[in-house]
Amino acid sequence: MRILITGGAGFLGARLAREILQRGQLNGQSVSELVIADLFPAPADLLADPRVKGHAGPMLEQGDLFKSGFDGVFHLASAVSGECELDFDLGLRSNLDSSRLLLDSIRASGKASRFVFASSVAVFGPDAGNPMPERVTDTTLPTPQTSYGTHKLMIEYMVADYTRKGFIDGRAARLMTVTVRPGKPNGAASSFFSGIIREPLAGTHTTCPVDPDVSHPVSSPGNTIHGLITVFEASRDALGGRMALNLPGLNVKVSDMLAALEKVAGPTVRARVKFERDERVAGIVANWAKGSTFDRANALGLKADASFEAIIEQYISDCKTRPAYPAEALNGLK
Amino acid sequence: MRILITGGAGFLGARLAREILQRGQLNGQSVSELVIADLFPAPADLLADPRVKGHAGPMLEQGDLFKSGFDGVFHLASAVSGECELDFDLGLRSNLDSSRLLLDSIRASGKASRFVFASSVAVFGPDAGNPMPERVTDTTLPTPQTSYGTHKLMIEYMVADYTRKGFIDGRAARLMTVTVRPGKPNGAASSFFSGIIREPLAGTHTTCPVDPDVSHPVSSPGNTIHGLITVFEASRDALGGRMALNLPGLNVKVSDMLAALEKVAGPTVRARVKFERDERVAGIVANWAKGSTFDRANALGLKADASFEAIIEQYISDCKTRPAYPAEALNGLK
Repeated sequence: MRILITGGAGFLGARLAREILQRGQLNGQSVSELVIADLFPAPADLLADPRVKGHAGPMLEQGDLFKSGFDGVFHLASAVSGECELDFDLGLRSNLDSSRLLLDSIRASGKASRFVFASSVAVFGPDAGNPMPERVTDTTLPTPQTSYGTHKLMIEYMVADYTRKGFIDGRAARLMTVTVRPGKPNGAASSFFSGIIREPLAGTHTTCPVDPDVSHPVSSPGNTIHGLITVFEASRDALGGRMALNLPGLNVKVSDMLAALEKVAGPTVRARVKFERDERVAGIVANWAKGSTFDRANALGLKADASFEAIIEQYISDCKTRPAYPAEALNGLK
Repeated sequence: MRILITGGAGFLGARLAREILQRGQLNGQSVSELVIADLFPAPADLLADPRVKGHAGPMLEQGDLFKSGFDGVFHLASAVSGECELDFDLGLRSNLDSSRLLLDSIRASGKASRFVFASSVAVFGPDAGNPMPERVTDTTLPTPQTSYGTHKLMIEYMVADYTRKGFIDGRAARLMTVTVRPGKPNGAASSFFSGIIREPLAGTHTTCPVDPDVSHPVSSPGNTIHGLITVFEASRDALGGRMALNLPGLNVKVSDMLAALEKVAGPTVRARVKFERDERVAGIVANWAKGSTFDRANALGLKADASFEAIIEQYISDCKTRPAYPAEALNGLK
């Protein structure tokens, strides 16, 4: 099988690539070539694998690559929510036009690739005529309150229509907020959901920009990647429809997250987080889902992470064993 | 005010143009210029009005015109559902890319035009995970089953996001199936909803491609135009959200429509309709809404047509008094 991962040099994309390379197969078919397309070069450990071909540069310039015919595609490349609110054209280009080019190129290839689109819980939001339920479901009416969520939703619908027409075998899966992410804070308004765990574990003081009772559905990187692969491998019948499905989320409050941090890493680590409200971030987060359900993913056998403690423990274990996790990530535990 | 109507040479667009010219104002502000952009030239009676400027040609070539700054825009131009099922690229170009160009051009003009987008009841459809309710509401989750419905829905969401960002003051209104349309059958799968009334009134025998118990929400041309103007004139507060709203529809069965025809025009006229199932059309229509509600439009004071008899009577009256209705349209009544 020839597989493409867009955004494959990013945190989730590279983790997905490593997982696929380690398995060596998808749905029982051997993966002979894994193409990583990303604005940035792929990590060295991936490029060292003879099955991997890296293509760095903007997606909008990769039409010929995308037309070359893939058995499977994971489309993860995306500009993040906060960036797109500040730069509307970036969002149009990176999230809407790039996805469209990818879909049309695959259609032009004549190969109806199995196609997983990484959508987002950010498609949901409250509109005046459409208040958000306590928990968003697979069939909650999305009324996104960011350009990021709007473009993700538009591509969900394109994926469904290209699938209906037989141009791709598409599946859109809505990622919950992924935590704990390694590295530095990024432009996503959700960045603090990782920061309030990652920074204190590294020994750094940090602030939480929202109130402790803010609730949100989250997922570990490992569980998220497992979800994407499971959705890829599912039969169309098992998917139960062409529409996007919610990946599993663990519904937690910020206060629960910090209590779990104290349980796993002790009160000194927990004490490195102070609350300091940031109106811009808090305003965006106020429009986000407070929780989610995931009946269709559940029917595929997917489950939420067992607890937030387990999510933190996955991060600690990753820091000790995986590439892309800095050596000083756990300095705060010493 | 400088007003733009895309699709302004079409049946609904030209009727809207005539209505606006006759009123002379929108929201109490005088209409000084009415620009009609359409693939085809506008009707002569419109071009004869000194306030009208016609621009014929593909929307994708009218970027400069769209950037020239409008106080108000009615975006009606569209390729119809049946055509888009047969020609996927036509749908992408005419319904998605053209609408995108229009939105981006208005954004570039720096003038946050009041913007009415004519969406469609075709955004609704049943997906395996999302059966359609008996009546689709303003907040029913759309899962369109045609490319036409998909592209209309995508633009609804773009209109909401461009409005949120302040680039336009947008309103998307979902038109119900408009009947009775004059002229010849067109490529829309819904064409027969007009044909089964129009052809027998003209003295022509015709077939109905679906079963008599097929039910659907319909609206007269007059009531549809009244709805579009009301949505244009409404305050943002009155609209109750940025999402699309359903325009009023009268929920009728095909058998009710034919009973009304017999009541208005007699059994000889009614007898000119025979049932002859067309699997292609019936298959598309099976995925359509059986009925609708329109709470938000109702809150703006809009109502459905009083009865299907009233809709037929509007058509008969229009044939006698309006341009674009052929002289022989009522030959069957003689």
